[in-house]
Amino acid sequence: MRTSFFSVSVQAIAWSPSGAVRIVDQQALPEDHVTRDLETAEAVAAAITGLQVRGAPLIGIAAAMGLVAGLRADRAAGRDAFLARAGRLAEQLGATRPTAVNLRWALERMLRVARAMPGDAAAVWDALKAEATAIWEEDRAMCRRIGEYGLPLIADGGNVLTHCNAGALATGGIGTALAPVYLAREAGRKVHVFVDETRPVLQGSRLTAWELQRAGVACTVITDGTAGSLMRAAQVDVVLVGADRIAANGDFANKIGTYSLAVLARHHGVPFYCCAPWSTVDPSRPNGDDMPIEQRPAGEVWLVAGRPIAPADVAVLNPAFDVTPARYVSGYVTDRGIVQPPFVA
Amino acid sequence: MRTSFFSVSVQAIAWSPSGAVRIVDQQALPEDHVTRDLETAEAVAAAITGLQVRGAPLIGIAAAMGLVAGLRADRAAGRDAFLARAGRLAEQLGATRPTAVNLRWALERMLRVARAMPGDAAAVWDALKAEATAIWEEDRAMCRRIGEYGLPLIADGGNVLTHCNAGALATGGIGTALAPVYLAREAGRKVHVFVDETRPVLQGSRLTAWELQRAGVACTVITDGTAGSLMRAAQVDVVLVGADRIAANGDFANKIGTYSLAVLARHHGVPFYCCAPWSTVDPSRPNGDDMPIEQRPAGEVWLVAGRPIAPADVAVLNPAFDVTPARYVSGYVTDRGIVQPPFVA
Repeated sequence: MRTSFFSVSVQAIAWSPSGAVRIVDQQALPEDHVTRDLETAEAVAAAITGLQVRGAPLIGIAAAMGLVAGLRADRAAGRDAFLARAGRLAEQLGATRPTAVNLRWALERMLRVARAMPGDAAAVWDALKAEATAIWEEDRAMCRRIGEYGLPLIADGGNVLTHCNAGALATGGIGTALAPVYLAREAGRKVHVFVDETRPVLQGSRLTAWELQRAGVACTVITDGTAGSLMRAAQVDVVLVGADRIAANGDFANKIGTYSLAVLARHHGVPFYCCAPWSTVDPSRPNGDDMPIEQRPAGEVWLVAGRPIAPADVAVLNPAFDVTPARYVSGYVTDRGIVQPPFVA
Repeated sequence: MRTSFFSVSVQAIAWSPSGAVRIVDQQALPEDHVTRDLETAEAVAAAITGLQVRGAPLIGIAAAMGLVAGLRADRAAGRDAFLARAGRLAEQLGATRPTAVNLRWALERMLRVARAMPGDAAAVWDALKAEATAIWEEDRAMCRRIGEYGLPLIADGGNVLTHCNAGALATGGIGTALAPVYLAREAGRKVHVFVDETRPVLQGSRLTAWELQRAGVACTVITDGTAGSLMRAAQVDVVLVGADRIAANGDFANKIGTYSLAVLARHHGVPFYCCAPWSTVDPSRPNGDDMPIEQRPAGEVWLVAGRPIAPADVAVLNPAFDVTPARYVSGYVTDRGIVQPPFVA
């Protein structure tokens, strides 16, 4: 029997010994693998806004942990003052990015625990720390289950195409869209991933390629415009992407360019799966029509490594996400199985 | 009546006073607007390979002019030696880029003139200089005609989407895909262009946005993954792209990502036009199945401004072009009108 040397060798988030939020700085990758200890909720909020920590599940975990780190100094405060400050910090953390639903889902869960926990500020803080750790550990378990449910989608010798980063760097565990890939590798299957570089922030070439390489998974970076001709040449067996928010009817928001991939996959008969934990479902939205789409700064498009790649005063449209209607999706690979809409709480 | 202040204020190629080939260095744009005088055929070949001069029609002109510049010192040679050297230089120039048919079309035209011209080397050289200048001037006229035939495709207030650079910087005149845009502007119509940045070389954001701005045409740069969601939101009225080679049945090679755009346009009912001079037709190819597709270096994808944006040893697939089947094309805007295949010489 084949011995597996597989391991996903990156842990995107952790507690520091002092109780700060320890992250891998995802803006420094792939050149530098730097960990940073974020001591305050404000620092966590800034890291989320600045994309040093990103990925829908991971920013939920980071926000929950950031709330805990930021409240360390308030453990001696009165209960009411502590809860009021927790509410303010949660509001600040929740305002960092509008599209991913996990962020608000995690913070609301934290605030519910805080309000329900009797006792003084120290006791509430202890409960919050346990809850943030639970959110993280649950996410790790959900990633694993997504991988197990998605594993049959990857044949031995299969070619996967993915967009952005929905891997270990986007979650507390082995990723969402990449989880089936990692488990296929662990099972000894030959698997190769085409990695959309994913402009403008290049999460594909910078992050996905980096973590796949570290895990020993064969991959090839392509520009976003290349996916269509690869599908036409029958070189893609399945498209796996993550999600930032899924409406009740299955419409979902994900990194800009996902919708184009979905249309191309449909056009070429390539299966297209959305991989996400159940917490990504927003049952309050019947469909994707009015999902909040974050508009990011123009500089992300026209400055690369500090060098302008477009005239400085040119107009730029930089929506970070697009919405893919449910009818393009072959299935939703979740921690509850491969499911179909409608999704209700 | 409205006075037009319109002018396309860039001339991509010219003779220098000494007879060298004067180009705008397209790798320095948009930061620096630098002209360079290429004194030898070898220098022109290197500039074509290095994308300092690019665009299918323009590299045909540059190669023809480079042949003339490179033969200046051979005017006192014997006729046979001159013709032999012309053949060698043409071979070198013709080998620089495999996909654009205009390059070989222009060089073959030059060699036919050389062989047909009686007299000594000086007389042949004079004929070659006249022929290269004619190729350039004809291209300028073809651009204008493409613009005139394409003008009805752009309504007042219309939104055009284009890919790569098929403008003044790609031709001897006002461009191919951008020619109708410039004439719409000249006619006083309001026109706005969505400019795909066009990874990896960013000819859209670096070149198309630059020349549209200089001409006072409103434009917005988008990442290549954004086009699909713009079409879904009905923000694109027409897609205009150039071509590097058109087969007899209408299949055509153009910058990587063009095929994806064509599928997206078809899917959303957006008219999709291929704009090119008739010299882009390669009647020797029945269809696009085996068109030569240039594979460019991996560094174009994983190095931006000298900074790695992917792990250094990652595999990269970097085809410079893809092939769009004719069935996706609403029409071919040429200097002979808006035409439909089959195309025969």
